[in-house]
Amino acid sequence: MLSIKELAARYNNSFSVADFRLQPTGLYQPMEHIMAIPGKRIRPLLLLIACDTFGGEVQQAMGAAHAMELFHNFSLVHDDIMDDATLRRGITTVHEKFGLNAGVLSGDALFAYAYKYLAESPEALLPSLFRVFTKAAIEILEGQQMDMDFEQRLDVTVDEYLKMIGYKTSVLLACSLQTGAIIGGASEADQARLYDFGLKLGLSFQIKDDWLDTFGDNEKVGKKVGGDIIQNKKTLLLITLLLEAGADDRAELLKLFAEEDEAKKVTGVKALYAKYQISEKALAKADALYNEALQSLADISIPDDRKANLYTMAQMIRDRDF
Amino acid sequence: MLSIKELAARYNNSFSVADFRLQPTGLYQPMEHIMAIPGKRIRPLLLLIACDTFGGEVQQAMGAAHAMELFHNFSLVHDDIMDDATLRRGITTVHEKFGLNAGVLSGDALFAYAYKYLAESPEALLPSLFRVFTKAAIEILEGQQMDMDFEQRLDVTVDEYLKMIGYKTSVLLACSLQTGAIIGGASEADQARLYDFGLKLGLSFQIKDDWLDTFGDNEKVGKKVGGDIIQNKKTLLLITLLLEAGADDRAELLKLFAEEDEAKKVTGVKALYAKYQISEKALAKADALYNEALQSLADISIPDDRKANLYTMAQMIRDRDF
Repeated sequence: MLSIKELAARYNNSFSVADFRLQPTGLYQPMEHIMAIPGKRIRPLLLLIACDTFGGEVQQAMGAAHAMELFHNFSLVHDDIMDDATLRRGITTVHEKFGLNAGVLSGDALFAYAYKYLAESPEALLPSLFRVFTKAAIEILEGQQMDMDFEQRLDVTVDEYLKMIGYKTSVLLACSLQTGAIIGGASEADQARLYDFGLKLGLSFQIKDDWLDTFGDNEKVGKKVGGDIIQNKKTLLLITLLLEAGADDRAELLKLFAEEDEAKKVTGVKALYAKYQISEKALAKADALYNEALQSLADISIPDDRKANLYTMAQMIRDRDF
Repeated sequence: MLSIKELAARYNNSFSVADFRLQPTGLYQPMEHIMAIPGKRIRPLLLLIACDTFGGEVQQAMGAAHAMELFHNFSLVHDDIMDDATLRRGITTVHEKFGLNAGVLSGDALFAYAYKYLAESPEALLPSLFRVFTKAAIEILEGQQMDMDFEQRLDVTVDEYLKMIGYKTSVLLACSLQTGAIIGGASEADQARLYDFGLKLGLSFQIKDDWLDTFGDNEKVGKKVGGDIIQNKKTLLLITLLLEAGADDRAELLKLFAEEDEAKKVTGVKALYAKYQISEKALAKADALYNEALQSLADISIPDDRKANLYTMAQMIRDRDF
């Protein structure tokens, strides 16, 4: 079994943004720009770990690993257009730097290149790899639409929210893990368990992310605490409050949505969160999902010592330690 | 062998826009809108004809046929964003009707669904089908970028132009034919001949399209003759003139680019076209490519009577008789 560090190094050594120094530059420069933004490369890493966990040959999974990173970057480029975002990790977004047309077209090309790299996987596995990946791609696009739809709604249920963040953020983690497992030779039952592990882990991560935005340590989070409250963002916290608040508190909350004094708004919404124990409920949900993720990992029918890297990754993702 | 009419009917009966009546509607309604615009469905038809020509089972090619139509519509939706087009065949474009975000995201989903339907093809053929399709997808996106790049340039060569329109418009025809041939069991050599047939036929069609815009019969073309001239569009006609015109005529042409009187502009550019026999040269190029297409078809190693539908399609496409 290879170490996480070794697997990360192998991925990073296998691909370079220079792979895109092709013609026409108007198409490939924006792709190079987004791929050059330093990132955690968490999806390819999970894929390679999964492959290695089941005793697979990591080199055979390298194209698929890159496919996940390319698809992830495709979704970032197009999401940034839809969110009208100008910065990503402090770097100018593609459509902001190169224009809308470049954002649309280079995103499309990242999507197409994901399939090109996926096709480097072992021939006999391609049909199932393509199906798993395409299913994930469609769900991720559906998740993005749900996210946009929820901005206009006040009656989003917890189940709807979990489905949305599951699709939008967890499915690609789960797909990466399943893909690695397929290439590693895992049984279908173990593939499904690993997929479930990734899905629950991603959900737990996202809920904790929502929690940190409101209740986290300003400096550790690295962004302004309360940003979600100021934007009326439909997080699990806000959705739970909307569902549980009595009539008066709900009216108060709706008034706070329009409050222009940001400090007053954050204090007001946090007071309502405290009254309904929203912080505790969200943390409990995140913990429960994390434990379900670990249970799925425990259920996988290989010796526990082979699962060490996956347990470590679960902890690192939970503790944001990467 | 099935008739062209029968094959078209089978395709049209196999798929319905209602296939997209899924949640979230914000994603699927725009897809339904574009797919419901009546069209010639030329790509799926060519695919089914190719499959049938080589004695393949047409039903096995139906998913791949639909994949080509979905991909074509994906490229229309995103190209309409890039061209800022408000109408397509007299119907409001997706981003105009549903907004930019819906245009971006539903286009992405059409692309993903193309892969989903392609995956319905016979299992053993999927690796090669996915590779052929992904190669075409990347070339088509490169072609769109080249087309946008050429708008800013005055030194586009004929070879560059042919590569651009080949990528942008012919490759998907060629890919459709090759895909049908693969499913029909054609040899690799015959697949390549059929691909070449589609590529040359598409190029010939596009050049004739450019010619018709300037020299065609107003009523037959169904749009204002001279539109390309008014927009300074880099057609084969204009590119040839830019390459061949003497210094004085070139200066005159560059002046005409800025001419605001449309009638004067069209007359002026057409006078230069006449001086350099641009019309004759473009028609000769279209004819030569058409004949090369027929030669590739003739080279395919099956009896000529089995190629009847392909010969008919070539004629119909040349004569715009569909």
